[in-house]
Order: sequence, then C-alpha cells, then structure tokens
Amino acid sequence: MSFVITRDELPDLARGAAVLGTGGGGDPRLGRAMVAHALSGGPGEVTVLTVDEVPDDAFVVPVAGMGAPTISNEKIPSVEAPVAALRAIERHLGRTADAVIPVEVGGMNSMVPLLIAAQIGLPVIDGDGMGRAFPELQMKTFAAYGVPGSPMSLAGVAGESIIIDTGPDNHRMEWLARGVTMRLGGAAQITEFTMTGKQVKDTAVRGSLTVAMRIGRALREARAEHRDPMDALAETIAATDYEHLRVLFRGKVIDVERLTDGGFVRGRATVSAFGEDSRLEIVFQNEHLTATRDGRMLCTVPDLICVLDIESGEAITTEAMRYGQRVAVIGIAAPPVMRTEAALGAFGPAAFGLTDDFVPLEERLPVG
Amino acid sequence: MSFVITRDELPDLARGAAVLGTGGGGDPRLGRAMVAHALSGGPGEVTVLTVDEVPDDAFVVPVAGMGAPTISNEKIPSVEAPVAALRAIERHLGRTADAVIPVEVGGMNSMVPLLIAAQIGLPVIDGDGMGRAFPELQMKTFAAYGVPGSPMSLAGVAGESIIIDTGPDNHRMEWLARGVTMRLGGAAQITEFTMTGKQVKDTAVRGSLTVAMRIGRALREARAEHRDPMDALAETIAATDYEHLRVLFRGKVIDVERLTDGGFVRGRATVSAFGEDSRLEIVFQNEHLTATRDGRMLCTVPDLICVLDIESGEAITTEAMRYGQRVAVIGIAAPPVMRTEAALGAFGPAAFGLTDDFVPLEERLPVG
Repeated sequence: MSFVITRDELPDLARGAAVLGTGGGGDPRLGRAMVAHALSGGPGEVTVLTVDEVPDDAFVVPVAGMGAPTISNEKIPSVEAPVAALRAIERHLGRTADAVIPVEVGGMNSMVPLLIAAQIGLPVIDGDGMGRAFPELQMKTFAAYGVPGSPMSLAGVAGESIIIDTGPDNHRMEWLARGVTMRLGGAAQITEFTMTGKQVKDTAVRGSLTVAMRIGRALREARAEHRDPMDALAETIAATDYEHLRVLFRGKVIDVERLTDGGFVRGRATVSAFGEDSRLEIVFQNEHLTATRDGRMLCTVPDLICVLDIESGEAITTEAMRYGQRVAVIGIAAPPVMRTEAALGAFGPAAFGLTDDFVPLEERLPVG
Repeated sequence: MSFVITRDELPDLARGAAVLGTGGGGDPRLGRAMVAHALSGGPGEVTVLTVDEVPDDAFVVPVAGMGAPTISNEKIPSVEAPVAALRAIERHLGRTADAVIPVEVGGMNSMVPLLIAAQIGLPVIDGDGMGRAFPELQMKTFAAYGVPGSPMSLAGVAGESIIIDTGPDNHRMEWLARGVTMRLGGAAQITEFTMTGKQVKDTAVRGSLTVAMRIGRALREARAEHRDPMDALAETIAATDYEHLRVLFRGKVIDVERLTDGGFVRGRATVSAFGEDSRLEIVFQNEHLTATRDGRMLCTVPDLICVLDIESGEAITTEAMRYGQRVAVIGIAAPPVMRTEAALGAFGPAAFGLTDDFVPLEERLPVG
C-alpha cells in the first residue's frame, strides 16, 4: 500500500540506504539534508507507491546522481539540477512523468527521487534498478531484463542539459555519459531507462525504499537498546528478499588506496583483525566489489559488502574510509532477481573484469 | 540566384574550400569523394540558394564535422552520420529542416551540407558562419551577432546521437561537445546554431561556397595556363568581400611540431626562405592562427593564413604539412563582417589567448 515520507522518516531512510549503498550511492547526511530542505518548502511529504500500485501505462522516470563520490561530496548538487534532468527528458520525449523511481539505493541516490518529488509533487516508486549501488549505468536489473537505457538526460549545476541516445547499447551510453559527467566537473544529475509502469513491474528490485527504512530504524533502535547493531541488521535482512547476512570481519582500517580515474573512484582498503593476525582486503570501484580474507574470497558482487562503524552500525562510504576506523564488514545476499543469469551478465563479477566466479554468500559461508 | 552543384563542380569547390580552410576544415579529397559518392546515388545534383533567397521563416540547420583533423583523416566519417545529426536535432526540436548551411569553410566542412543535401534533397545555403575554418564551436559570426548555439546535436559512427543545451553559453557548449567528441573517438558530425532564414541574413558570411568554387577554378585554370597560382588567387580574391591577398613567404618547410591535445591539434611549423636567411613561423590550433617572419608578426586571426603548394597552389592542411614541402604562405583579409568588434570578440586574437592585437593584413603589409 502507498505511504508517505515526511522529514521524520528521512534519518532512518538515509541511514539504511547508505548500508545498501555498499560504500557508494552518495553521502547520506548530504542526501538527507537536501530532501529535508526541499520538504520544508513544499507540502511537507512525498507519496510512495508500491510497484504493484503503478498503473501499467504510467510514464516512469528513473533518476539519480552520477559521478565519482570524491567529487559529489565536495561539489554539492543543486536542488534544481535533478528537476532539470527530469524536465530535459520530458521535453525531449514530449511526455510528462507520472512517477520517479530511484536508479539505485544509496545515501544520496535513494534521496534524489524524493528531492524531485518534494519540489514538483510526483509520487516515488518503492523500488529501484539495482537493489544496492553499482558504479556503471548499464549495471541494472532494468537493463538485464530488456529495458533500453536510452534516451537518457544529464543536467549540470550551471543549467546545462544533455540528451544521449545510443539505441540498445547501454555500455556505449555509460561511456558517453561518463565523459559528459567528467566534463561537467565530475558530477551530474541524470535520468535513464524511462519506462512504463508495466516495465517497472517486470524489471525493478521491489521494496528497496522500505527495506532501507527498516534497516535505518533497526540500527537506531539497537543503539537505544545497547544491542549489537549487526544482530539487529541480520534480523531485519532475514525478513526481506535479501534474506542472508554474514558478518565477514571485525577490525581496524589500516590502509586505504584511492584514485579518481576515468570518472570513478577506484581503490582498495585493508582491515586488520583485533587480537589476531588476519586481514580483510576490500576492492572497490565507487562501490565495494570483493572482500577477501587472508587470500580467501568471502563475498563478490552482486552480493553486498558493507563497511559499518562497529559501534553504531552506520555505513562508511568508500570515500569516508580512513586509517584507524573500527569497523564491522558485513555481506548481504542480493535478492533472487539480482542473481539470475541475465542479472549476473549485467553486474556479476565478469562485468567488472573480475575472474572470480559468483558464488552466493550463503554458500561460501553456510553458517550465519 | 540559386544554382546547382553536380559532380563536375566538386573538384573546384573542394580545392577552393581547402584554401579558405586555412589549414583546417578537413581533407578536401575525402570530402569530395564522399559527396561524389552520395550524388551518384541520388538525383545527381544539389540546389544552392543565395542568402537572400532563403525565406525569413525557414528553419535552417548549420552542419559540420567536429574533431581534431588527425583523427578525421584516419577515421573516415560515415555518410550516414551527418544525416543522423540532422535528424537528431529535428526530432529534438520537433521541426523539419528547410535548408542546411555550412558551419565553416573547409575541404571537408564545405562538403558536409552537400553530403546531406544529396541524400535527402534539401537545398544548401551559399554562406557559412566563419568565412574560413576556426577550431572552436563558439567562434562564429552566428554567435558574434547573437544566435545561440544551443541546442546542438552530435552523431557518431555507431549510430549514437547526443543533444547538448547550454542556453546562451556557447563556450560551455563547446566544452561539453569537445568532451563528447573525444569520447566518440575524436570525430563527430554536428548541428548547432539552428536559426531562421532571417537570422541567416543577419549573421552569415555570404557567398562563401561561390568564393570557394571561384578559387578552385582559378587555381585549375592557372595550372593549365602555366601561370603563377598566387597571381590567379590574388585576382580572384580582389573581386570578393575578402578583397586583399598578400604572399607572406615562399620557402621550404623545415620543421613541424604537432600534438593532439584536448581534442585539438596544436602546434607550429617553420618555413625557411629559399636562398636567404629568413624564417616564417606559423602557429596553429587545428587552423593557422599567426604567421611571424623573423620575429615580426605578419598576419593573425581572423585574417586567413594559407599554406599552399608553391607550384600548384593546392592547400596543405596542418595535418598534411611535412618536412621538405616547398610552399607559398599567403594571407587573405577576412571580410568586413568578420572584423567588427563583435566578431573580433568571438574569434580575434584574444579569443585564442594571443596577446597580439588584431591589425588588418592590408595595414601590416600595405603593398600587395
């Protein structure tokens, strides 16, 4: 059933979305603050529709921010640019959006649809195209299940708009859009994979806004009750399509290498265990891709690898990771819709140039 | 009065346009061959309208190739991409072109409108936005006299199309389009500065296709008559809005530095005089910008600097310049429409970061 989001729900949503962002998806404090600001100027609430409630013939526009997190954190997006990106694709296609949907889950990117909705009164759909965050535009369930990404729009902070149409070639779209984003200073607001309500039902990861809010609430309540946040998270995940959670490692961040290259942040982080000689290495491209303990692969994309503050359970983005942080690293199983052959083709290990096979988290680590 | 261009006129047009291309504007043999091919498949001729014949309310689309010449010469444009760029802007604006006009004069870029016209039966307008070739999109009389470049379209060889809209900011448009062009492999087909027939009358450099054809014919005839091609050229130019021609130097190319950087070919060439100790240095960014003899400036943008084969008078592009070539370097005065304060603001020396003032060629060198 549809529900509303007000300022009161934003902290839980941003906190939970940042966990599912697996290191990327944007900074949750920034995302929360921008939506709170937008809500204060409008009707004060945003309507969220479940996927099943979207009419089959609705014109739905997926929206997001694009760029290396290093840039987005320093070059704060304008509240106008996400609306400008929507208006640009509407003008180009000669259609008016009936609803927006997040492209991905993340501290910023779960908030972008709300930011638009709060300003122009559209509903937001409870779902997305990744069930997490991924670094590249073609890495989406929308793509895996046959929706073309083109035409897409980009908007910059100076009022520019760009439309890219590469027909059915989503990789080419990513390549061109990444170039435009770099030229816009490293960050842009985008729309892509415009589709019908029927296509949303056929291709989206369902309920991801709700899951994010539940995760956020669980972490908040665990803190109030002085409970281990990882236990609270595991309980919450067990009741969703994600289902499985494993604590992969607890330790101290002892090294982070980070390079902004080709419009992405690429690098690796090393975590050293407390009181034993063991290390976890995490490789990332905007988001975490693999977690390897002492040479043994524990978790790979598309399963989620999340680095959390060990006390609060708050997500730490790749951009915020620093020497000395005490962290828990958890794996979360991707929902079944993200593990089909088609989905693994779009965002499995090989899509990132990794040679590791995808083995489900719960098979690698049978005991929870 | 309107006239037609058939295959028979193409060699003269390409030869003359390459002279006015001042080192850039694309390779004339390639341009000629592509149009000849397109004409052989269609009605066999293209109608050319004078600027005065264009109805005030006509929807006119300026068209060109974009990119570093180094790339365009190796990565031959498809005959489809120029039409795809036109179709993309038509779809975006919901209007159908009534005519096309060259963005600039050049061995390839004077031919691009003919290539489109031959395929889809539009008239071409006898004029352009530069009266020569310039390296950057905003360097146009269209811009100098108030037509916005946006929205513009780009098309690549794989069927991609891109629309860029930067409102009134033509520099920003250039910056984004250059980034897209690099991402497309270094060359793209574009439309920009779409305008009405009235705006063409108010802003275009008139008659440049005709001038190019006259130059091409004069060079051909001079060769048949064993006349010095520079004399024939000077006579031809004297009867046009360009009016003044000066032979700046004759000598042998002894050095060429060329670097493809940021989507442009930048560099310099040195020519050594025959039988005396004197050198001419030419600086270029896709096109020739300045000619300096033994430290004395002889000619600067927007006046034209053309490097010609000393025997045949055929233009040598920056890309084709080689050690040992025997060349005449000539200066041609830009027409008055290209020397106003507004025009110099768009493409005078300062627009290229040069500190030299613009002094008209015929003032620097009073004796012809």
